[in-house]
Amino acid sequence: MFTLRKETTKGKARTGELKTDHGTIDTPIFMPVGTAGTVKALDRSALLEKVKAPVILGNTYHLYLRPGNRIMEKAGGLHSFMNWPGAILTDSGGYQVFSLSDIRELEPDGVVFKSHLDGSRHKFTPESVIETQRIFGSDIMMVLDECPPYPASESYVRNSLDLTHRWAGMCFDAFHNSSGRYGHRQFLFGITQGGVYPELRRQSVETLSETGFDGLAIGGLSVGEPPEMMYEMTDISTDYMPVNKPRYLMGVGTPADLLESVARGIDMFDCVMPTRNARNGMLFTRNGIINVKNARWKEHFEPADPGFHSDLCQYHTMAYIHHLFRAGEILGLQLASAHNLTFYLWLMEQIRMHISDDTYDDWYPGMAETMRKRL
Amino acid sequence: MFTLRKETTKGKARTGELKTDHGTIDTPIFMPVGTAGTVKALDRSALLEKVKAPVILGNTYHLYLRPGNRIMEKAGGLHSFMNWPGAILTDSGGYQVFSLSDIRELEPDGVVFKSHLDGSRHKFTPESVIETQRIFGSDIMMVLDECPPYPASESYVRNSLDLTHRWAGMCFDAFHNSSGRYGHRQFLFGITQGGVYPELRRQSVETLSETGFDGLAIGGLSVGEPPEMMYEMTDISTDYMPVNKPRYLMGVGTPADLLESVARGIDMFDCVMPTRNARNGMLFTRNGIINVKNARWKEHFEPADPGFHSDLCQYHTMAYIHHLFRAGEILGLQLASAHNLTFYLWLMEQIRMHISDDTYDDWYPGMAETMRKRL
Ligand SMILES: [Zn+2]
Ligand SMILES: [Zn+2]
Repeated sequence: MFTLRKETTKGKARTGELKTDHGTIDTPIFMPVGTAGTVKALDRSALLEKVKAPVILGNTYHLYLRPGNRIMEKAGGLHSFMNWPGAILTDSGGYQVFSLSDIRELEPDGVVFKSHLDGSRHKFTPESVIETQRIFGSDIMMVLDECPPYPASESYVRNSLDLTHRWAGMCFDAFHNSSGRYGHRQFLFGITQGGVYPELRRQSVETLSETGFDGLAIGGLSVGEPPEMMYEMTDISTDYMPVNKPRYLMGVGTPADLLESVARGIDMFDCVMPTRNARNGMLFTRNGIINVKNARWKEHFEPADPGFHSDLCQYHTMAYIHHLFRAGEILGLQLASAHNLTFYLWLMEQIRMHISDDTYDDWYPGMAETMRKRL
Repeated sequence: MFTLRKETTKGKARTGELKTDHGTIDTPIFMPVGTAGTVKALDRSALLEKVKAPVILGNTYHLYLRPGNRIMEKAGGLHSFMNWPGAILTDSGGYQVFSLSDIRELEPDGVVFKSHLDGSRHKFTPESVIETQRIFGSDIMMVLDECPPYPASESYVRNSLDLTHRWAGMCFDAFHNSSGRYGHRQFLFGITQGGVYPELRRQSVETLSETGFDGLAIGGLSVGEPPEMMYEMTDISTDYMPVNKPRYLMGVGTPADLLESVARGIDMFDCVMPTRNARNGMLFTRNGIINVKNARWKEHFEPADPGFHSDLCQYHTMAYIHHLFRAGEILGLQLASAHNLTFYLWLMEQIRMHISDDTYDDWYPGMAETMRKRL
């Protein structure tokens, strides 16, 4: 599935290639989040022709509740349901159960929760989330894990880690005792946890590295801990990960986070930030961060980032975008969401280029600094 | 500006050509409404490449309040502000003053109103709305009128008509005493009124026909009166209108209304219905009307109108569209809005074809019946 192509001389950044039956993905890559079967406010042509996303993410929790597995199966899986020709990664739903559902009861063999939509009672088990993702037909499936809150004590995290590892094994077995329904390959990634405890992180990576997953994720970060702590945990985790497997840092992050984490050996990212922040009027640009709603843009008759290839920058001035947000117009959400994702995918391309010509480790700190600027 | 091309043998339907400096418009035409400088939920490529709208409408009331004339002037007019290469018609703002603003005082020389946005006090006069539309730089400008409510007594409507006619003359003078700022031509249309009173409608048309406007609109319909009454008033109005001027029925309507009104000699339409109803989950198709939210579409794995050229029909099943609306996803609004406008512009093309080959009067009643069907 994964071929390592190039590592930088000075550091841990690396390029590679993830082969799926829905296309080959150059890494490092950012995966736009398509929570409920749509990357919010982006249509197919925006995703394919502007953002040029080779892979998107679907949320099992949301899709399991609505439209539900029966409709997904009748549709012929998630690719077919949303008519998405590229690759799809689905999470296991665990994270949303712990963060969104009203009531949850942790049991040794799974988690019982109430739907945030209608209060109905459901249970996710390692077997059921594999079955659900088989029905969805995602190219990359994720195991069920428990994501401890931040802060959490070391003993809490250690106990949680036992459960996460047990569930990972059960998911691995369920994966190998089942098969894809739609004629394309599906892969399974493990999720390492360990909170902000280096020793637990190391243990988790070592344990799950032995299982034989197609890739390894780092979960439980970007949940409120300081960025430096996140970078440190990432660094420790990749130190112990096999070199020939893709590494996925879940739910991260800002453009600066992506740069820092690639430097620490990460290959894959997902985050709602580019789209969610877009809807709140935040634009990421090559010169830093723009708050669209700021009055300083009211009479700014230039694009947000002149020359950048998003529709927002190609066709419109900041005065117009500012107006759209003030007037609450949907077009503002469309343009800003597509812009931010176009920017994120552009950034990943820049990252890959700088790794390829081995200039990454000198380039990224300055770029990260620029990315943090508020314009 | 307008060239009549063809009239049907049996009836009053006609094709023509409206020449503007932002393109030639084949009539009959439907103009998508871009209230606040954007046709809601449609981006530039949807409008240009899918809907293929040659002309859109902007609302003077909304744009005058936000972003305001100063910014519009600095932007170089509305075409430039929203970067729209096609033609633009702007209304005078009168209709919104009477329907949206909190308090209004009718004065002989204009109307005082409070902004629905911030309560600030403003006055529209015949001169000021011409000045504002000069600043916007719309290809077609509209006079200030009073639109009587429905129902309204004949004496109320007669008095209102005097004011409307006086204001029309003042607008005409202001138009001829001013000039365009951006190097392209601007035209001015008069608005006939008269409520549901045939004699007043006739008087209004005869009065305004003499003024020398570039086109004549029929205002004050589709405000709650029965459709038959609207069709009758339209019929009477076009009977007295000069044959060589474009005729614009304001704020109309359903697909069936368009068919009926073209049969009565109308060349131009605008209405928020295709976009507003789209946002509420109503789709117009070649087979009739679809309510997306209806449970019958939940497992319907076929497009809304198979073979139709909108993105909604080309790429997606009704099961998916139903899901997007149930989940409150913006993409549902985007796809449905673009679909309905694509359908409206397609319908106008069908209308023009049937007029051109002189089959319109036999074709349209059956088509109107189909358009009214609920699927
Ligand atoms: Zn995130
Ligand atoms: Zn209307």
